[in-house]
Amino acid sequence: MEKITSVHNQRVKDWKKLQTRKQRTKTGTYLLDGWHLINEALNSQTAILSLIGTQEQFELHPDILTHELETYEVTKEIMADITDSVTPQGIAAVVAKPTDESEIPADLAGAWLLLDQIQDPGNIGTMIRTADAAGFVGVVAGHKTADIYAPKVVRSMQGSQFHLQLRQGNLFSWLEKFKQNGMPIYGTELNQDAQNFRELTPINNFALIMGNEGHGMQSDLLAQTTKNLYIPMDGQAESLNVAVSAGILMFQLKQNNH
Amino acid sequence: MEKITSVHNQRVKDWKKLQTRKQRTKTGTYLLDGWHLINEALNSQTAILSLIGTQEQFELHPDILTHELETYEVTKEIMADITDSVTPQGIAAVVAKPTDESEIPADLAGAWLLLDQIQDPGNIGTMIRTADAAGFVGVVAGHKTADIYAPKVVRSMQGSQFHLQLRQGNLFSWLEKFKQNGMPIYGTELNQDAQNFRELTPINNFALIMGNEGHGMQSDLLAQTTKNLYIPMDGQAESLNVAVSAGILMFQLKQNNH
Repeated sequence: MEKITSVHNQRVKDWKKLQTRKQRTKTGTYLLDGWHLINEALNSQTAILSLIGTQEQFELHPDILTHELETYEVTKEIMADITDSVTPQGIAAVVAKPTDESEIPADLAGAWLLLDQIQDPGNIGTMIRTADAAGFVGVVAGHKTADIYAPKVVRSMQGSQFHLQLRQGNLFSWLEKFKQNGMPIYGTELNQDAQNFRELTPINNFALIMGNEGHGMQSDLLAQTTKNLYIPMDGQAESLNVAVSAGILMFQLKQNNH
Repeated sequence: MEKITSVHNQRVKDWKKLQTRKQRTKTGTYLLDGWHLINEALNSQTAILSLIGTQEQFELHPDILTHELETYEVTKEIMADITDSVTPQGIAAVVAKPTDESEIPADLAGAWLLLDQIQDPGNIGTMIRTADAAGFVGVVAGHKTADIYAPKVVRSMQGSQFHLQLRQGNLFSWLEKFKQNGMPIYGTELNQDAQNFRELTPINNFALIMGNEGHGMQSDLLAQTTKNLYIPMDGQAESLNVAVSAGILMFQLKQNNH
Protein backbone atom coordinates (compact mmCIF):
# COMPACT_ATOMS: atom_id res chain seq x y z
CA MET A 1 0.00 0.00 0.00
CA GLU A 2 1.33 3.39 -1.02
CA LYS A 3 0.75 6.37 1.27
CA ILE A 4 0.07 9.75 -0.29
CA THR A 5 -0.07 12.90 1.79
CA SER A 6 0.27 15.71 -0.75
CA VAL A 7 -2.58 17.02 -2.91
CA HIS A 8 0.11 17.90 -5.45
CA ASN A 9 0.98 14.25 -6.00
CA GLN A 10 0.51 13.32 -9.68
CA ARG A 11 -1.85 10.43 -8.88
CA VAL A 12 -4.08 12.75 -6.86
CA LYS A 13 -4.18 15.17 -9.79
CA ASP A 14 -5.11 12.33 -12.16
CA TRP A 15 -7.88 11.08 -9.88
CA LYS A 16 -9.28 14.56 -9.54
CA LYS A 17 -9.31 14.94 -13.32
CA LEU A 18 -11.79 12.04 -13.50
CA GLN A 19 -14.41 14.64 -12.60
CA THR A 20 -14.12 15.73 -16.26
CA ARG A 21 -15.66 13.85 -19.16
CA LYS A 22 -12.46 14.34 -21.16
CA GLN A 23 -10.33 12.44 -18.68
CA ARG A 24 -12.91 9.68 -18.23
CA THR A 25 -13.03 9.17 -22.01
CA LYS A 26 -9.25 9.30 -22.38
CA THR A 27 -8.61 6.72 -19.65
CA GLY A 28 -11.75 4.59 -20.01
CA THR A 29 -12.19 4.85 -16.24
CA TYR A 30 -14.32 6.66 -13.68
CA LEU A 31 -14.45 7.15 -9.94
CA LEU A 32 -16.68 5.41 -7.40
CA ASP A 33 -17.25 7.21 -4.11
CA GLY A 34 -18.33 5.37 -0.98
CA TRP A 35 -18.61 1.82 0.38
CA HIS A 36 -21.94 0.95 -1.22
CA LEU A 37 -20.67 1.44 -4.76
CA ILE A 38 -17.33 -0.23 -4.09
CA ASN A 39 -19.05 -3.30 -2.66
CA GLU A 40 -21.34 -3.41 -5.69
CA ALA A 41 -18.28 -3.24 -7.96
CA LEU A 42 -16.60 -6.07 -6.05
CA ASN A 43 -19.73 -8.23 -6.27
CA SER A 44 -20.02 -7.62 -10.00
CA GLN A 45 -16.47 -8.60 -10.89
CA THR A 46 -15.80 -5.12 -12.24
CA ALA A 47 -12.09 -4.37 -12.43
CA ILE A 48 -11.06 -2.05 -9.59
CA LEU A 49 -7.90 -0.39 -10.86
CA SER A 50 -7.11 1.62 -7.73
CA LEU A 51 -8.59 1.59 -4.25
CA ILE A 52 -8.18 4.88 -2.40
CA GLY A 53 -8.98 5.26 1.27
CA THR A 54 -8.18 7.09 4.47
CA GLN A 55 -6.31 5.38 7.31
CA GLU A 56 -9.51 5.53 9.36
CA GLN A 57 -11.56 3.63 6.76
CA PHE A 58 -8.93 0.93 6.25
CA GLU A 59 -8.81 0.42 10.02
CA LEU A 60 -12.59 0.21 10.23
CA HIS A 61 -12.88 -2.17 7.26
CA PRO A 62 -9.64 -4.21 7.10
CA ASP A 63 -11.37 -6.87 4.96
CA ILE A 64 -11.13 -4.69 1.91
CA LEU A 65 -7.34 -5.09 1.98
CA THR A 66 -7.60 -8.83 1.43
CA HIS A 67 -8.77 -8.27 -2.15
CA GLU A 68 -5.21 -7.63 -3.36
CA LEU A 69 -6.11 -4.39 -5.07
CA GLU A 70 -3.69 -1.59 -5.94
CA THR A 71 -4.30 0.40 -2.77
CA TYR A 72 -3.50 3.96 -1.73
CA GLU A 73 -3.86 5.46 1.71
CA VAL A 74 -4.58 9.17 1.49
CA THR A 75 -5.45 12.04 3.82
CA LYS A 76 -9.01 13.31 4.32
CA GLU A 77 -7.95 16.47 2.53
CA ILE A 78 -6.98 14.50 -0.58
CA MET A 79 -10.23 12.53 -0.40
CA ALA A 80 -12.24 15.74 -0.32
CA ASP A 81 -10.18 17.00 -3.25
CA ILE A 82 -10.72 14.05 -5.58
CA THR A 83 -14.40 13.36 -4.88
CA ASP A 84 -17.21 15.65 -5.87
CA SER A 85 -19.06 14.82 -2.64
CA VAL A 86 -19.85 17.25 0.16
CA THR A 87 -19.42 14.47 2.72
CA PRO A 88 -16.95 11.93 1.31
CA GLN A 89 -17.01 8.59 3.12
CA GLY A 90 -13.24 8.27 2.98
CA ILE A 91 -13.21 5.45 0.44
CA ALA A 92 -13.11 5.66 -3.34
CA ALA A 93 -12.02 3.59 -6.30
CA VAL A 94 -11.01 4.01 -9.91
CA VAL A 95 -12.87 1.45 -12.02
CA ALA A 96 -12.91 0.63 -15.71
CA LYS A 97 -15.87 1.55 -17.88
CA PRO A 98 -17.26 -1.47 -19.77
CA THR A 99 -15.05 -2.07 -22.80
CA ASP A 100 -18.09 -2.96 -24.89
CA GLU A 101 -20.00 0.20 -24.04
CA SER A 102 -20.20 1.38 -27.64
CA GLU A 103 -21.17 -2.00 -29.12
CA ILE A 104 -24.68 -3.03 -30.02
CA PRO A 105 -25.22 -6.65 -28.87
CA ALA A 106 -25.75 -9.03 -31.79
CA ASP A 107 -28.51 -10.89 -29.94
CA LEU A 108 -30.50 -7.81 -28.98
CA ALA A 109 -33.45 -8.72 -26.74
CA GLY A 110 -35.23 -7.67 -23.55
CA ALA A 111 -36.37 -4.21 -22.52
CA TRP A 112 -34.09 -1.27 -23.30
CA LEU A 113 -34.30 2.36 -22.24
CA LEU A 114 -32.85 4.94 -24.65
CA LEU A 115 -31.91 8.42 -23.44
CA ASP A 116 -32.14 11.14 -26.07
CA GLN A 117 -30.44 14.42 -25.11
CA ILE A 118 -31.16 14.14 -21.39
CA GLN A 119 -29.22 16.87 -19.63
CA ASP A 120 -29.76 16.62 -15.88
CA PRO A 121 -27.36 14.16 -14.20
CA GLY A 122 -29.88 13.41 -11.42
CA ASN A 123 -32.53 12.52 -13.99
CA ILE A 124 -30.12 10.27 -15.90
CA GLY A 125 -29.02 8.42 -12.76
CA THR A 126 -32.57 8.05 -11.48
CA MET A 127 -33.76 6.64 -14.83
CA ILE A 128 -30.94 4.08 -14.90
CA ARG A 129 -31.76 3.08 -11.30
CA THR A 130 -35.46 2.77 -12.21
CA ALA A 131 -34.71 0.74 -15.36
CA ASP A 132 -32.76 -1.66 -13.16
CA ALA A 133 -35.68 -1.97 -10.72
CA ALA A 134 -38.12 -2.51 -13.58
CA GLY A 135 -36.04 -5.39 -14.90
CA PHE A 136 -34.71 -3.69 -18.01
CA VAL A 137 -31.76 -5.34 -19.73
CA GLY A 138 -29.97 -2.15 -20.66
CA VAL A 139 -29.83 1.60 -21.02
CA VAL A 140 -28.35 3.42 -24.03
CA ALA A 141 -27.30 7.04 -23.71
CA GLY A 142 -27.35 8.88 -27.03
CA HIS A 143 -24.39 11.07 -27.97
CA LYS A 144 -26.22 14.23 -26.97
CA THR A 145 -27.06 12.93 -23.49
CA ALA A 146 -24.80 14.07 -20.65
CA ASP A 147 -22.03 11.65 -19.66
CA ILE A 148 -23.40 8.67 -17.73
CA TYR A 149 -20.21 8.42 -15.69
CA ALA A 150 -20.29 11.98 -14.36
CA PRO A 151 -20.04 12.00 -10.53
CA LYS A 152 -23.66 13.10 -10.02
CA VAL A 153 -24.99 10.39 -12.34
CA VAL A 154 -22.85 7.75 -10.64
CA ARG A 155 -24.16 8.91 -7.27
CA SER A 156 -27.81 8.80 -8.28
CA MET A 157 -27.75 5.52 -10.19
CA GLN A 158 -26.64 3.89 -6.91
CA GLY A 159 -24.79 0.94 -8.40
CA SER A 160 -27.30 0.05 -11.11
CA GLN A 161 -24.51 0.26 -13.70
CA PHE A 162 -23.38 -3.11 -12.31
CA HIS A 163 -26.80 -4.71 -12.81
CA LEU A 164 -27.63 -3.87 -16.39
CA GLN A 165 -25.89 -3.13 -19.67
CA LEU A 166 -24.98 0.52 -19.86
CA ARG A 167 -24.10 1.74 -23.36
CA GLN A 168 -23.40 4.96 -25.19
CA GLY A 169 -23.91 5.38 -28.89
CA ASN A 170 -25.75 6.63 -31.94
CA LEU A 171 -29.44 6.06 -31.22
CA PHE A 172 -30.27 5.83 -34.94
CA SER A 173 -27.97 2.81 -35.28
CA TRP A 174 -29.64 1.23 -32.25
CA LEU A 175 -33.12 1.80 -33.66
CA GLU A 176 -32.10 0.03 -36.84
CA LYS A 177 -31.00 -3.00 -34.83
CA PHE A 178 -34.21 -3.03 -32.78
CA LYS A 179 -36.18 -3.03 -36.03
CA GLN A 180 -34.09 -5.84 -37.51
CA ASN A 181 -34.90 -7.84 -34.38
CA GLY A 182 -38.62 -7.13 -34.68
CA MET A 183 -38.72 -5.18 -31.42
CA PRO A 184 -41.21 -2.32 -31.14
CA ILE A 185 -39.77 1.12 -30.40
CA TYR A 186 -41.86 3.39 -28.21
CA GLY A 187 -41.30 7.11 -28.40
CA THR A 188 -42.68 9.60 -25.94
CA GLU A 189 -44.25 12.69 -27.36
CA LEU A 190 -47.65 14.21 -26.87
CA ASN A 191 -49.14 14.48 -30.35
CA GLN A 192 -52.38 13.60 -32.13
CA ASP A 193 -51.28 10.10 -33.06
CA ALA A 194 -49.85 9.24 -29.65
CA GLN A 195 -51.37 6.38 -27.72
CA ASN A 196 -52.45 6.33 -24.07
CA PHE A 197 -49.77 4.25 -22.32
CA ARG A 198 -52.44 2.33 -20.41
CA GLU A 199 -53.74 0.78 -23.63
CA LEU A 200 -50.51 -1.13 -24.17
CA THR A 201 -50.21 -4.77 -23.20
CA PRO A 202 -47.04 -5.44 -21.20
CA ILE A 203 -44.29 -7.06 -23.28
CA ASN A 204 -40.75 -8.27 -22.81
CA ASN A 205 -38.79 -7.14 -25.84
CA PHE A 206 -38.93 -3.47 -26.75
CA ALA A 207 -37.17 -0.12 -26.66
CA LEU A 208 -38.49 2.97 -24.88
CA ILE A 209 -37.05 6.41 -25.69
CA MET A 210 -37.14 9.36 -23.29
CA GLY A 211 -36.36 12.83 -24.64
CA ASN A 212 -34.82 16.05 -23.43
CA GLU A 213 -36.28 17.72 -20.31
CA GLY A 214 -37.38 20.83 -22.17
CA HIS A 215 -37.57 19.97 -25.85
CA GLY A 216 -38.52 16.31 -25.86
CA MET A 217 -37.21 13.87 -28.45
CA GLN A 218 -35.38 14.77 -31.65
CA SER A 219 -37.94 14.79 -34.45
CA ASP A 220 -35.74 12.63 -36.71
CA LEU A 221 -35.67 10.00 -34.02
CA LEU A 222 -39.40 10.31 -33.39
CA ALA A 223 -39.97 9.54 -37.08
CA GLN A 224 -38.33 6.14 -36.55
CA THR A 225 -40.53 4.93 -33.69
CA THR A 226 -43.17 2.20 -33.93
CA LYS A 227 -45.56 4.13 -31.73
CA ASN A 228 -45.60 7.20 -29.50
CA LEU A 229 -46.97 7.03 -26.01
CA TYR A 230 -48.46 9.66 -23.76
CA ILE A 231 -49.44 9.71 -20.11
CA PRO A 232 -52.91 11.25 -19.75
CA MET A 233 -52.76 14.14 -17.34
CA ASP A 234 -55.53 15.43 -15.19
CA GLY A 235 -55.20 18.68 -13.35
CA GLN A 236 -53.44 21.68 -14.81
CA ALA A 237 -49.85 20.49 -14.69
CA GLU A 238 -48.17 21.00 -18.03
CA SER A 239 -45.76 18.12 -17.86
CA LEU A 240 -44.18 15.50 -15.68
CA ASN A 241 -40.56 15.28 -14.65
CA VAL A 242 -38.80 13.06 -17.21
CA ALA A 243 -37.58 10.55 -14.61
CA VAL A 244 -41.09 10.22 -13.16
CA SER A 245 -42.57 9.72 -16.65
CA ALA A 246 -39.92 7.12 -17.43
CA GLY A 247 -40.77 5.29 -14.20
CA ILE A 248 -44.49 5.23 -14.94
CA LEU A 249 -43.93 3.96 -18.49
CA MET A 250 -41.27 1.39 -17.62
CA PHE A 251 -43.38 -0.18 -14.86
CA GLN A 252 -46.40 -0.29 -17.17
CA LEU A 253 -44.65 -1.74 -20.20
CA LYS A 254 -42.53 -4.35 -18.45
CA GLN A 255 -44.69 -5.86 -15.74
CA ASN A 256 -43.68 -8.59 -13.38
CA ASN A 257 -45.56 -9.92 -10.40
CA HIS A 258 -43.12 -11.19 -7.81
CA MET B 1 -43.21 52.12 -8.64
CA GLU B 2 -40.39 52.43 -6.14
CA LYS B 3 -36.79 52.12 -7.34
CA ILE B 4 -34.27 50.40 -5.10
CA THR B 5 -30.58 50.36 -5.91
CA SER B 6 -28.92 49.35 -2.64
CA VAL B 7 -28.65 45.76 -1.38
CA HIS B 8 -28.67 47.27 2.11
CA ASN B 9 -32.22 48.55 1.69
CA GLN B 10 -34.48 47.08 4.40
CA ARG B 11 -36.96 45.67 1.87
CA VAL B 12 -34.15 43.85 0.08
CA LYS B 13 -33.02 42.38 3.38
CA ASP B 14 -36.58 41.24 4.15
CA TRP B 15 -37.02 39.63 0.73
CA LYS B 16 -33.72 37.82 1.08
CA LYS B 17 -34.78 36.50 4.48
CA LEU B 18 -37.65 34.66 2.75
CA GLN B 19 -35.02 32.05 1.87
CA THR B 20 -35.37 30.94 5.52
CA ARG B 21 -38.27 28.90 6.83
CA LYS B 22 -38.43 31.12 9.92
CA GLN B 23 -39.16 34.24 7.92
CA ARG B 24 -41.66 32.48 5.66
CA THR B 25 -43.55 31.23 8.70
CA LYS B 26 -43.41 34.59 10.47
CA THR B 27 -44.73 36.55 7.48
CA GLY B 28 -46.99 33.89 5.93
CA THR B 29 -45.36 34.67 2.58
CA TYR B 30 -42.81 33.21 0.17
CA LEU B 31 -40.96 34.24 -2.95
CA LEU B 32 -41.72 33.31 -6.56
CA ASP B 33 -38.85 33.52 -9.02
CA GLY B 34 -39.45 33.87 -12.75
CA TRP B 35 -42.21 34.66 -15.22
CA HIS B 36 -43.79 31.23 -15.35
CA LEU B 37 -44.60 31.16 -11.64
CA ILE B 38 -45.73 34.78 -11.56
CA ASN B 39 -48.12 34.20 -14.45
CA GLU B 40 -49.46 31.10 -12.70
CA ALA B 41 -50.02 33.17 -9.55
CA LEU B 42 -51.85 35.87 -11.53
CA ASN B 43 -54.06 33.26 -13.21
CA SER B 44 -54.92 31.67 -9.88
CA GLN B 45 -56.01 34.87 -8.13
CA THR B 46 -53.25 34.42 -5.54
CA ALA B 47 -52.46 37.68 -3.77
CA ILE B 48 -49.20 39.13 -5.09
CA LEU B 49 -47.99 41.35 -2.27
CA SER B 50 -44.91 42.75 -4.01
CA LEU B 51 -43.71 42.52 -7.59
CA ILE B 52 -39.94 42.91 -7.95
CA GLY B 53 -38.25 43.31 -11.31
CA THR B 54 -35.32 44.75 -13.18
CA GLN B 55 -35.75 47.71 -15.53
CA GLU B 56 -35.01 45.40 -18.44
CA GLN B 57 -37.81 42.97 -17.57
CA PHE B 58 -40.38 45.73 -17.06
CA GLU B 59 -39.44 47.15 -20.45
CA LEU B 60 -39.74 43.74 -22.11
CA HIS B 61 -43.07 42.94 -20.42
CA PRO B 62 -44.86 46.27 -19.77
CA ASP B 63 -48.22 44.44 -19.45
CA ILE B 64 -47.32 43.27 -15.98
CA LEU B 65 -47.50 46.90 -14.78
CA THR B 66 -51.19 47.13 -15.65
CA HIS B 67 -52.07 44.77 -12.78
CA GLU B 68 -51.78 47.58 -10.21
CA LEU B 69 -49.44 45.61 -7.98
CA GLU B 70 -47.08 47.08 -5.39
CA THR B 71 -44.07 47.18 -7.69
CA TYR B 72 -40.34 47.63 -7.11
CA GLU B 73 -37.68 48.16 -9.72
CA VAL B 74 -34.34 46.75 -8.57
CA THR B 75 -30.85 46.19 -9.96
CA LYS B 76 -29.65 42.82 -11.27
CA GLU B 77 -27.36 42.66 -8.28
CA ILE B 78 -30.30 42.90 -5.88
CA MET B 79 -32.20 40.29 -7.89
CA ALA B 80 -29.29 37.86 -7.62
CA ASP B 81 -29.13 38.61 -3.90
CA ILE B 82 -32.78 37.87 -3.07
CA THR B 83 -33.31 34.80 -5.25
CA ASP B 84 -31.69 31.46 -4.67
CA SER B 85 -31.33 30.97 -8.42
CA VAL B 86 -28.07 30.73 -10.33
CA THR B 87 -29.66 32.44 -13.32
CA PRO B 88 -32.43 34.73 -12.03
CA GLN B 89 -34.84 35.86 -14.76
CA GLY B 90 -35.02 39.35 -13.35
CA ILE B 91 -38.57 39.05 -12.08
CA ALA B 92 -39.80 37.88 -8.68
CA ALA B 93 -42.80 38.31 -6.41
CA VAL B 94 -43.71 38.00 -2.77
CA VAL B 95 -46.96 36.04 -2.47
CA ALA B 96 -49.10 34.93 0.46
CA LYS B 97 -49.19 31.30 1.55
CA PRO B 98 -52.76 29.93 1.67
CA THR B 99 -54.35 31.10 4.92
CA ASP B 100 -56.09 27.74 5.32
CA GLU B 101 -52.95 25.69 4.94
CA SER B 102 -53.21 24.11 8.37
CA GLU B 103 -56.93 23.33 8.18
CA ILE B 104 -58.39 19.95 7.30
CA PRO B 105 -61.33 20.49 4.91
CA ALA B 106 -64.66 19.46 6.45
CA ASP B 107 -65.82 17.85 3.20
CA LEU B 108 -62.71 15.77 2.64
CA ALA B 109 -62.83 13.93 -0.70
CA GLY B 110 -60.76 13.11 -3.76
CA ALA B 111 -57.22 11.80 -3.94
CA TRP B 112 -54.68 13.13 -1.44
CA LEU B 113 -50.91 12.63 -1.22
CA LEU B 114 -49.36 12.73 2.26
CA LEU B 115 -45.65 13.38 2.71
CA ASP B 116 -44.13 11.81 5.82
CA GLN B 117 -40.66 13.12 6.71
CA ILE B 118 -39.56 13.72 3.13
CA GLN B 119 -36.27 15.62 3.23
CA ASP B 120 -35.12 16.38 -0.31
CA PRO B 121 -36.66 19.60 -1.70
CA GLY B 122 -36.44 18.32 -5.27
CA ASN B 123 -38.35 15.17 -4.34
CA ILE B 124 -41.03 17.19 -2.54
CA GLY B 125 -41.51 19.56 -5.46
CA THR B 126 -41.55 16.77 -8.02
CA MET B 127 -44.15 14.82 -6.01
CA ILE B 128 -46.43 17.86 -5.76
CA ARG B 129 -46.05 18.46 -9.51
CA THR B 130 -46.84 14.79 -10.21
CA ALA B 131 -49.86 14.81 -7.87
CA ASP B 132 -51.17 17.77 -9.86
CA ALA B 133 -50.68 15.92 -13.16
CA ALA B 134 -52.36 12.80 -11.77
CA GLY B 135 -55.44 14.82 -10.80
CA PHE B 136 -54.96 14.73 -7.05
CA VAL B 137 -57.00 17.19 -5.00
CA GLY B 138 -54.32 17.99 -2.49
CA VAL B 139 -50.96 17.31 -0.86
CA VAL B 140 -50.34 17.37 2.89
CA ALA B 141 -46.82 17.82 4.22
CA GLY B 142 -46.37 16.34 7.69
CA HIS B 143 -44.56 18.39 10.33
CA LYS B 144 -41.33 16.46 9.82
CA THR B 145 -41.28 17.06 6.07
CA ALA B 146 -39.05 19.87 4.82
CA ASP B 147 -40.80 23.20 4.19
CA ILE B 148 -42.89 23.09 1.02
CA TYR B 149 -42.21 26.78 0.35
CA ALA B 150 -38.42 26.50 0.34
CA PRO B 151 -36.95 27.99 -2.87
CA LYS B 152 -35.90 24.60 -4.29
CA VAL B 153 -39.34 23.10 -3.67
CA VAL B 154 -41.05 26.10 -5.23
CA ARG B 155 -38.77 25.78 -8.26
CA SER B 156 -39.43 22.08 -8.77
CA MET B 157 -43.18 22.12 -8.19
CA GLN B 158 -43.41 24.51 -11.16
CA GLY B 159 -46.61 26.25 -10.16
CA SER B 160 -48.58 23.20 -9.05
CA GLN B 161 -49.23 24.89 -5.69
CA PHE B 162 -51.76 27.00 -7.60
CA HIS B 163 -53.60 23.96 -8.97
CA LEU B 164 -54.20 21.85 -5.89
CA GLN B 165 -54.68 22.27 -2.15
CA LEU B 166 -51.32 22.40 -0.43
CA ARG B 167 -51.47 21.84 3.33
CA GLN B 168 -49.13 21.31 6.25
CA GLY B 169 -50.15 19.55 9.43
CA ASN B 170 -50.22 16.61 11.78
CA LEU B 171 -50.63 13.52 9.61
CA PHE B 172 -52.28 11.56 12.44
CA SER B 173 -55.11 14.12 12.58
CA TRP B 174 -55.49 13.87 8.81
CA LEU B 175 -55.67 10.07 8.91
CA GLU B 176 -58.45 10.29 11.49
CA LYS B 177 -60.45 12.50 9.13
CA PHE B 178 -59.86 10.22 6.15
CA LYS B 179 -61.17 7.32 8.23
CA GLN B 180 -64.22 9.28 9.36
CA ASN B 181 -64.95 9.90 5.69
CA GLY B 182 -64.58 6.23 4.80
CA MET B 183 -61.57 6.85 2.59
CA PRO B 184 -58.91 4.13 2.37
CA ILE B 185 -55.38 5.09 3.40
CA TYR B 186 -52.54 3.47 1.47
CA GLY B 187 -49.14 3.27 3.09
CA THR B 188 -45.98 2.37 1.27
CA GLU B 189 -43.71 -0.11 2.94
CA LEU B 190 -42.27 -3.37 1.76
CA ASN B 191 -43.39 -5.94 4.31
CA GLN B 192 -45.02 -9.37 4.35
CA ASP B 193 -48.54 -8.03 4.40
CA ALA B 194 -48.00 -5.45 1.69
CA GLN B 195 -50.01 -5.72 -1.50
CA ASN B 196 -48.73 -5.51 -5.07
CA PHE B 197 -49.89 -2.08 -6.28
CA ARG B 198 -51.08 -3.58 -9.57
CA GLU B 199 -53.78 -5.57 -7.77
CA LEU B 200 -55.61 -2.41 -6.74
CA THR B 201 -58.59 -1.16 -8.67
CA PRO B 202 -58.34 2.56 -9.45
CA ILE B 203 -60.49 4.70 -7.17
CA ASN B 204 -61.29 8.35 -6.67
CA ASN B 205 -61.28 8.98 -2.92
CA PHE B 206 -58.22 7.88 -0.98
CA ALA B 207 -55.00 8.96 0.71
CA LEU B 208 -51.54 7.77 -0.30
CA ILE B 209 -48.59 8.22 2.08
CA MET B 210 -44.97 8.40 0.95
CA GLY B 211 -42.22 8.07 3.56
CA ASN B 212 -38.70 9.31 4.16
CA GLU B 213 -36.06 8.69 1.47
CA GLY B 214 -33.92 6.49 3.71
CA HIS B 215 -36.11 5.27 6.54
CA GLY B 216 -39.56 5.04 4.98
CA MET B 217 -42.72 5.84 6.89
CA GLN B 218 -43.00 6.33 10.66
CA SER B 219 -44.14 3.03 12.13
CA ASP B 220 -46.89 4.71 14.20
CA LEU B 221 -48.32 6.11 11.00
CA LEU B 222 -47.96 2.82 9.17
CA ALA B 223 -50.07 1.21 11.90
CA GLN B 224 -52.95 3.51 10.92
CA THR B 225 -53.11 2.63 7.22
CA THR B 226 -55.84 0.59 5.54
CA LYS B 227 -53.33 -1.24 3.39
CA ASN B 228 -49.66 -1.10 2.47
CA LEU B 229 -48.56 -1.20 -1.12
CA TYR B 230 -45.35 -2.29 -2.76
CA ILE B 231 -43.99 -2.01 -6.27
CA PRO B 232 -42.58 -5.37 -7.37
CA MET B 233 -38.99 -4.96 -8.46
CA ASP B 234 -37.11 -7.06 -10.91
CA GLY B 235 -33.40 -6.72 -11.32
CA GLN B 236 -31.09 -6.10 -8.40
CA ALA B 237 -31.99 -2.52 -7.56
CA GLU B 238 -32.67 -2.14 -3.87
CA SER B 239 -35.18 0.64 -4.06
CA LEU B 240 -36.74 3.29 -6.23
CA ASN B 241 -36.38 7.04 -5.85
CA VAL B 242 -39.32 8.20 -3.71
CA ALA B 243 -40.63 10.64 -6.34
CA VAL B 244 -40.55 7.92 -9.02
CA SER B 245 -42.38 5.49 -6.70
CA ALA B 246 -44.95 8.15 -5.91
CA GLY B 247 -45.49 8.75 -9.63
CA ILE B 248 -46.00 5.07 -10.41
CA LEU B 249 -48.46 4.65 -7.52
CA MET B 250 -50.40 7.86 -8.15
CA PHE B 251 -50.92 7.10 -11.84
CA GLN B 252 -52.02 3.56 -11.00
CA LEU B 253 -54.42 4.43 -8.20
CA LYS B 254 -56.08 7.43 -9.79
CA GLN B 255 -56.59 6.60 -13.43
CA ASN B 256 -58.19 8.79 -16.01
CA ASN B 257 -58.41 8.27 -19.72
CA HIS B 258 -58.54 11.62 -21.42
